[in-house]
Amino acid sequence: MVGGDTEPAIRIDDDELSRFVEQILRAGDVADKHAERVAEGLVRADLRGISSHGVARLEVYMKKFEAGGFNPNPEITTTPLSDAAAVVDADDGPGQSAARVGMDTAMELAADAGAGMVTVTNSNHFGTAAGYTEYAAENEHIGIAMTNVGPDVIPFGGAAPFLGTNPISISVPTNREFPITLDMATSVVAMGKIQEVARREDTDIPSEWAVDADGEPTTDPHDAVAVRPLGGPKGYGLGIMVDVFCGLLSGAGPSPTVGPLYDEFDEPMRLGHFLGAIDIETFRDVEEFKQDVDDYINQLKAVEPRDGFDEVMLPGEIEAEKLREQRESGVELQPGAVESLRSLAEQYDVSFPDDSSN
Amino acid sequence: MVGGDTEPAIRIDDDELSRFVEQILRAGDVADKHAERVAEGLVRADLRGISSHGVARLEVYMKKFEAGGFNPNPEITTTPLSDAAAVVDADDGPGQSAARVGMDTAMELAADAGAGMVTVTNSNHFGTAAGYTEYAAENEHIGIAMTNVGPDVIPFGGAAPFLGTNPISISVPTNREFPITLDMATSVVAMGKIQEVARREDTDIPSEWAVDADGEPTTDPHDAVAVRPLGGPKGYGLGIMVDVFCGLLSGAGPSPTVGPLYDEFDEPMRLGHFLGAIDIETFRDVEEFKQDVDDYINQLKAVEPRDGFDEVMLPGEIEAEKLREQRESGVELQPGAVESLRSLAEQYDVSFPDDSSN
Repeated sequence: MVGGDTEPAIRIDDDELSRFVEQILRAGDVADKHAERVAEGLVRADLRGISSHGVARLEVYMKKFEAGGFNPNPEITTTPLSDAAAVVDADDGPGQSAARVGMDTAMELAADAGAGMVTVTNSNHFGTAAGYTEYAAENEHIGIAMTNVGPDVIPFGGAAPFLGTNPISISVPTNREFPITLDMATSVVAMGKIQEVARREDTDIPSEWAVDADGEPTTDPHDAVAVRPLGGPKGYGLGIMVDVFCGLLSGAGPSPTVGPLYDEFDEPMRLGHFLGAIDIETFRDVEEFKQDVDDYINQLKAVEPRDGFDEVMLPGEIEAEKLREQRESGVELQPGAVESLRSLAEQYDVSFPDDSSN
Repeated sequence: MVGGDTEPAIRIDDDELSRFVEQILRAGDVADKHAERVAEGLVRADLRGISSHGVARLEVYMKKFEAGGFNPNPEITTTPLSDAAAVVDADDGPGQSAARVGMDTAMELAADAGAGMVTVTNSNHFGTAAGYTEYAAENEHIGIAMTNVGPDVIPFGGAAPFLGTNPISISVPTNREFPITLDMATSVVAMGKIQEVARREDTDIPSEWAVDADGEPTTDPHDAVAVRPLGGPKGYGLGIMVDVFCGLLSGAGPSPTVGPLYDEFDEPMRLGHFLGAIDIETFRDVEEFKQDVDDYINQLKAVEPRDGFDEVMLPGEIEAEKLREQRESGVELQPGAVESLRSLAEQYDVSFPDDSSN
């Protein structure tokens, strides 16, 4: 993934890309249904333009599967706790499978109870949180997804990393082609963005983003050892709350106990997720709700844009446009990702898909 | 409240102050139980050092009660919707009463279902969200509280206000004297802070805080017509989600439809709240959970502080220390608040409590 970046960006049809990713996973002995979930999650992230959480991650996932840190054939178990609560044990499998089970469980609980709150333990990296909340929104729920992550964010007032970038996503159904989707790290940026984008492009990063080993702000992505919480005490507080839901309420353990993705390949990450679903129909007629959401969107779109903006965009709108465009024209892959995937293709003897832009 | 600020800051015993606030409310024909809730909420905000949401608000509350915008004797009704969901109609009464009913209902639902999710409609200003979540945490729940507020925050990329400062609070029980409590506006600051603190002190405000009538950043609090969302798209997204839960899921109506507190005194604000309670015991043994929270706090406190900080503080810790100190030494009231309360004392023929620091 580091490599020479000698190849140009290419485009690959999203179905072809999913098939390719699945084939690699299966060649590494990942069970079919889990290969399907992981491929779906990674490719969807690329489709939405979140390449830091896309197929560029497949190489490290394979290292984890091969070395035993990710269980390639987990027995995921769901234990109901009450009418509106359940806990899922991911059995050290890929987070994509466990979080999907978690959201399915949350929606099943919500069908009767009005809301479902599900913790997930013994899990691993689950990709983008938006993948689960948009799935909930497609099924007429307000979806909530959070995960804790290993320590790479300094607490407000602290000089060393303690929290993870601990993201929160919420999606809301609409009458449009896409839901309103918030998906945010509780840090100023995700460490993954610094690692995958800034390092690859070898450009400076803003000084508000990260600190070096001494806890001092740095603009060199290579010196960045920790990122800073969003807006100081607020992002710090949100990051702690994500840890409480995902690490402590689940019993999985908080951010400082979560293992690394890019190291200790024979060790599971042992992180926790939280999936919540609110059944809108329990509260209001879902069509009336969506009509109100539509009116809200129209009013928001009528707000005069500031200088430098064409219009006020909804949370998740840029990603939804990117998804629509890339479903038509193919997923754009940057040279680093292409190189990584080609080397996997060779290693597992799977043919790499053709560039669909040719 | 604007006035000459000629009087010095004084301290008043918190029980005396509560009694005084209740007497004023009763003299304005506010029913006993509602007077009690409002007084408790306002004084608790001052105790925690959040004077922008404290007794300095009593004067405008009285204008609302007198003119009919706040119903002084509301019939608050609770409608169960499912095992884990309910809706509360505040009957245009004070938000403090309705939100308390909402959190009580959420905890009752959570006792059986594991979680309780409650929307509140037809409500008014409810003070600080932390008042309800700390109450939940004292009862061994994770508490969640949100409210929408009238439009005074620009959307990301927009030039005019649309969202409210739409705060979110979450509290978590601990073995310490106080819970971990996040209580944050989804804007850079609360408009109330600009109104009550910056204007009173007549100092400049940071340029990141607010915009003027043209949507341009301003440092003059008198020119500030709208505040900016926390961290751009993230705070904007969070503010929208608060509006979805409080305004749209409840049916109360979103921020742009919420009436003002400091104007149209004969009109209810018609805002919405969302109260959530997670019963910890449903997920884990509550003592084990609290032990894990304690270990977490100890690890966090062991993080080396940055230059300029003595130690890493918990969310809500500064407020908890202030509360303990002011319970002992009396609530410090600034000249503007004292003047406002003295004028109410005269108007309603209620004797103003003695300065307890003398």
